[in-house]
Amino acid sequence: MRAARYYDRGDIRIEDIAEPEVGPGMVGIDVAWCGICGTDLHEYAEGPIFIPPAGHPQPISKESAPITLGHEMSGVVTAVGPGVDDVAVGDHVVVEPYILRDDVDTGPASHDYHLSPDMNFIGLGGCGGGLGEKIAVKRRWVHRISPDIPLDQAALIEPLSVGCHAVERSGAEAGAIALITGAGPIGLLTAAVCTAKGITTIISEPSSLRRQKAADAGVGDHIVDPTADDVVGRVLEITGGRGADVGFECTSVQPALDTLFDALKPTGVLVVVSIWSHPGSVEMQKLVLKEIDMRGTIAYVNSHPAAIALVEEGKVDLAPFITGRIALDDLIDKGFDTLIHRNETAVKILVSPSGAGL
Amino acid sequence: MRAARYYDRGDIRIEDIAEPEVGPGMVGIDVAWCGICGTDLHEYAEGPIFIPPAGHPQPISKESAPITLGHEMSGVVTAVGPGVDDVAVGDHVVVEPYILRDDVDTGPASHDYHLSPDMNFIGLGGCGGGLGEKIAVKRRWVHRISPDIPLDQAALIEPLSVGCHAVERSGAEAGAIALITGAGPIGLLTAAVCTAKGITTIISEPSSLRRQKAADAGVGDHIVDPTADDVVGRVLEITGGRGADVGFECTSVQPALDTLFDALKPTGVLVVVSIWSHPGSVEMQKLVLKEIDMRGTIAYVNSHPAAIALVEEGKVDLAPFITGRIALDDLIDKGFDTLIHRNETAVKILVSPSGAGL
Repeated sequence: MRAARYYDRGDIRIEDIAEPEVGPGMVGIDVAWCGICGTDLHEYAEGPIFIPPAGHPQPISKESAPITLGHEMSGVVTAVGPGVDDVAVGDHVVVEPYILRDDVDTGPASHDYHLSPDMNFIGLGGCGGGLGEKIAVKRRWVHRISPDIPLDQAALIEPLSVGCHAVERSGAEAGAIALITGAGPIGLLTAAVCTAKGITTIISEPSSLRRQKAADAGVGDHIVDPTADDVVGRVLEITGGRGADVGFECTSVQPALDTLFDALKPTGVLVVVSIWSHPGSVEMQKLVLKEIDMRGTIAYVNSHPAAIALVEEGKVDLAPFITGRIALDDLIDKGFDTLIHRNETAVKILVSPSGAGL
Repeated sequence: MRAARYYDRGDIRIEDIAEPEVGPGMVGIDVAWCGICGTDLHEYAEGPIFIPPAGHPQPISKESAPITLGHEMSGVVTAVGPGVDDVAVGDHVVVEPYILRDDVDTGPASHDYHLSPDMNFIGLGGCGGGLGEKIAVKRRWVHRISPDIPLDQAALIEPLSVGCHAVERSGAEAGAIALITGAGPIGLLTAAVCTAKGITTIISEPSSLRRQKAADAGVGDHIVDPTADDVVGRVLEITGGRGADVGFECTSVQPALDTLFDALKPTGVLVVVSIWSHPGSVEMQKLVLKEIDMRGTIAYVNSHPAAIALVEEGKVDLAPFITGRIALDDLIDKGFDTLIHRNETAVKILVSPSGAGL
């Protein structure tokens, strides 16, 4: 079968590899669609980061580069291994792409299995990837979805789960007002989750193309331009002088962080969703005197069921966020390069590993 | 009556002023003891900060410098104004020293009245102060205490309430393990609250005299020296490799913040208690990848009842934290100067405004 294999920074190859074996407790999936994630771009441009370099096997998967990429996938079950009796051939599924130690509690009450030692992701740390035609995944990480959800949209359930977890981390409830800095894919999907939960959203985004994309996607109750508008002033106006209840930092840019500290109400919650590659400068006096809660959030933990429900119940429409569908052979030219160099209108580009969806 | 009046930076005068009137809804108090707070020192050395400078009246109190200092006070009720029927002459009391707008909800369910607009403190923003012989305080801010609590110790209930609120902000419960950076007065009192609540404490403090003081006061299950010990290593050892559940930053020093980020477990809570006069550098990647909650805490909000209960029930012994008792005339020489210049062993210096306690 064909798969995109990460060898090293700037070196991704489309190759023929053996099909995965569907062992005990595993589910074999024909990948329908796999999204390209910002993490994949970082691995390509600046990595390896999560990917274990050649000769340095990941402690759990025991694999190292080359590894198959792709962790935002949807597909159809083609086989189940011994011991799997609650997923059937033909089921539509998405994957929660974790690689975890066997002794980690991944039960429904866990809120931290995603932070356990040596954690990694399927499609980065080994165990196959969604940018291959087929994959075998442990039953625990396979989530069944309604066949009514188009499989292309289903590939966005993984990043939607990131938004679900971020909003859950904020503690915000219906009626709250959120300021979201950045209208990249995660900012947009976080906004979509907020809207679905009855949280009013104010999106601050300097790129006019991205602001337009948010508006076209029907995301953001208010969309402001931090290069022209007084964002804090607008937030105070919208909140009746109180300040935003919660903020979501989705840019990894210092001025956005500063704006959030000023725009939040006292006791406001600031969720940092973006991955910063540098330290942030934090106005500690504002953190203290306003009793701000600044909370990191990463990935998802028991978040997929909620994300799937939002889509199944029609509360989030993922269609507007799909801005491209490409074949595996076009991964670099039409996928990575578009997202890295011309990414202002591209939100999510999906890959059909087998080409069947195109 | 005699009172310490703040005129300007470096200019505090002991003067004769008129006794306060005990108007409707007010409680007249004979001040027994008043502690000197780090905030008072900042006002003296670098202020005015909270204190409204001459000609710039505080919006609620309408007062400006000179104002009477002191907000950590205990005393005995000498008069009650019309409408006060639940406090009686002779009651022992402490003051929760807030100056708030009349329209702020200060009910028992409020968690944010201390963050309301124009908030200030009695003894900084006007309304008299504990460094005067008498004070009249609104009933709402007077808390009765058992006459079994010595009045000198009772003067420490205000800073103890800061510790109570900080621990409440952390969400830590019995069985948790806390790393506290800094064994100044607030670090020590926060540790005392932790101990009272069954939270194991690790105190990191570079000053050997302060480490000794913590040990003498019976505070801190483990006391480490960050200039000699591997603090993170010790925390991992004590926590079985997991990391501390919560951290309390009580130094306003960058290396302490860095240590806390490394010593906390994933999902750990870092409460910033100290007032930083400069921005902090935050390892955003650790905040995100460990899902750290970094929470500011300031003063107290409905915290005095819990602090009083800890003392009344004998769960916190405040006696070891009193390191000096002085007369009002000695405020600068034996109080401020000792704390500013020779503060390594001084924790709390108490002033007897009338001299009656000496």
